[in-house]
Amino acid sequence: MNTMLKADTPLYLGIDGGGSKCRAVIVSSDQHILGEGLSGPANPLRGMKVATDSIISATQQALTCAGLAFNDMARLTVGAGLAGVNVPQYFQMFSDWRHPFKALHLTSDLHIACMGAHQGQDGAVIIVGTGSCGLAAVNGDIVEVGGHGFPYGDNGSGAWFGMQLLHHVLLSLDQLAAPTLMTDLLLQELGVSDSMGLVSHFMHATPTTYAKFAPLVFTAADAGDTTALRLAEQGAAFIGAIAARLLATKPPRLSFIGGLAHKLMPYLPASVQQQVTPALQTPELGAVWFARQSSQAQSYATSL
Amino acid sequence: MNTMLKADTPLYLGIDGGGSKCRAVIVSSDQHILGEGLSGPANPLRGMKVATDSIISATQQALTCAGLAFNDMARLTVGAGLAGVNVPQYFQMFSDWRHPFKALHLTSDLHIACMGAHQGQDGAVIIVGTGSCGLAAVNGDIVEVGGHGFPYGDNGSGAWFGMQLLHHVLLSLDQLAAPTLMTDLLLQELGVSDSMGLVSHFMHATPTTYAKFAPLVFTAADAGDTTALRLAEQGAAFIGAIAARLLATKPPRLSFIGGLAHKLMPYLPASVQQQVTPALQTPELGAVWFARQSSQAQSYATSL
Repeated sequence: MNTMLKADTPLYLGIDGGGSKCRAVIVSSDQHILGEGLSGPANPLRGMKVATDSIISATQQALTCAGLAFNDMARLTVGAGLAGVNVPQYFQMFSDWRHPFKALHLTSDLHIACMGAHQGQDGAVIIVGTGSCGLAAVNGDIVEVGGHGFPYGDNGSGAWFGMQLLHHVLLSLDQLAAPTLMTDLLLQELGVSDSMGLVSHFMHATPTTYAKFAPLVFTAADAGDTTALRLAEQGAAFIGAIAARLLATKPPRLSFIGGLAHKLMPYLPASVQQQVTPALQTPELGAVWFARQSSQAQSYATSL
Repeated sequence: MNTMLKADTPLYLGIDGGGSKCRAVIVSSDQHILGEGLSGPANPLRGMKVATDSIISATQQALTCAGLAFNDMARLTVGAGLAGVNVPQYFQMFSDWRHPFKALHLTSDLHIACMGAHQGQDGAVIIVGTGSCGLAAVNGDIVEVGGHGFPYGDNGSGAWFGMQLLHHVLLSLDQLAAPTLMTDLLLQELGVSDSMGLVSHFMHATPTTYAKFAPLVFTAADAGDTTALRLAEQGAAFIGAIAARLLATKPPRLSFIGGLAHKLMPYLPASVQQQVTPALQTPELGAVWFARQSSQAQSYATSL
């Protein structure tokens, strides 16, 4: 038991629930991190039971870490940023969840990433990881662009680069396009010698499978390979268009996050690069900001 | 019982086994079609049992149609063109099959399509349906290009066009690209009003789902929509590159088959269009040509 925390102290729980992991953080009303937890996928696409089990499991870890008891869940004001809750059907499923918390405020994982990056203040964020998307939150208005899923969306993302890599390598092996260094890099990485070997590897590939090979495009581009350079520029054009759309909302700050962000950065227009500021906090801490602001807005609305 | 056929008359069975259907045709040694059959998927990707059940079922129908008994299967010299047998693992699985026929000669569905199109003679064929690929058979050499699967390959195919359509519509709805007529066409076709509605429809889309919407690109291109025109040209460039590669082998004939072939034709270079000749026979009759030629080659080898 954490004897430092009186039973009536407000406690906030931030949840960052993605397709592969769920992170939880408990924060006191005076902004101290008390405990953290990590569990599996919390995306409702995998089913509500998997998602809610992951959330509860990460929360229990965070409670234990904070020296609190499991029944202290009823004290937690929760902000949860979950992949997929921008789909109305999944938002409804989570709203109907008989959760064990004091309150549960729901939003997208992208929104809490933005709130974390700017410590709860206005700003814009672009994620370039396995997928790609962007969000600006300015003066209470939210603009969300990109994303939508793979293979038709998530342009300029890791999955997109990996798929384009394979596409160009297969064209080249078929002698339908010029040779590219990416062919040698990909064949070597997979230990195969031809198209057939490549295709067997990618036959049931997920976005994560493709994204794993995205860095090879940048290795080849850095070595001056023309096809890879063009590809890096194409991907950067997609991300640059997202940036331009978000910057049009005049956000005070713009941050890039995600595993491919730093590789793509040099290919973005200088005008975008100059405006990029580092993300200040994690998405789960962004979820805490969201919980605070949502519960304050609610108390304010109730007191009117 | 078909009393016209003596018990020692050679009989050929042609099988065209694809991902959704299996067609069978029985042909006499003097080239008369005796019976036909149609069943479900014969692609080993769906499992060997499904594939062999489909082949047997289509064969039984063709035997019945020909007035023959099921145990006449043992008289059939079979040519089978099966999607997927270009993958060594699946070729081996089919080679190991304890089939009920006199002989079974295996090749790809693309190869028998080519043999059918040119009545067993040398030539080249390009398929532009749900997928896309091309093959040339000239002087005993076979060149195969394209295909490889979706979404990284099958460029310029129905699935590719459908995915590109969705890609451009989402970019346009996100105001990341210029408006396009394809947006109105796709939203109307699906009876949805925004990106969310589109994405829900395509979340678990197969190549067939995408291919269904490919014709909308050509509707928009015919109406002069710039984005759709550029897309039609891009798709045609992929198919044109396949054509150029096959024409370099100097095939006496070149045929296009598949549901999207006629829509794409006007966008191909005039030099390619001028060389296109109609397919003369179906792929399953191509499989019969393959059976004849393979068994003759075998007898010749044995008699040496």
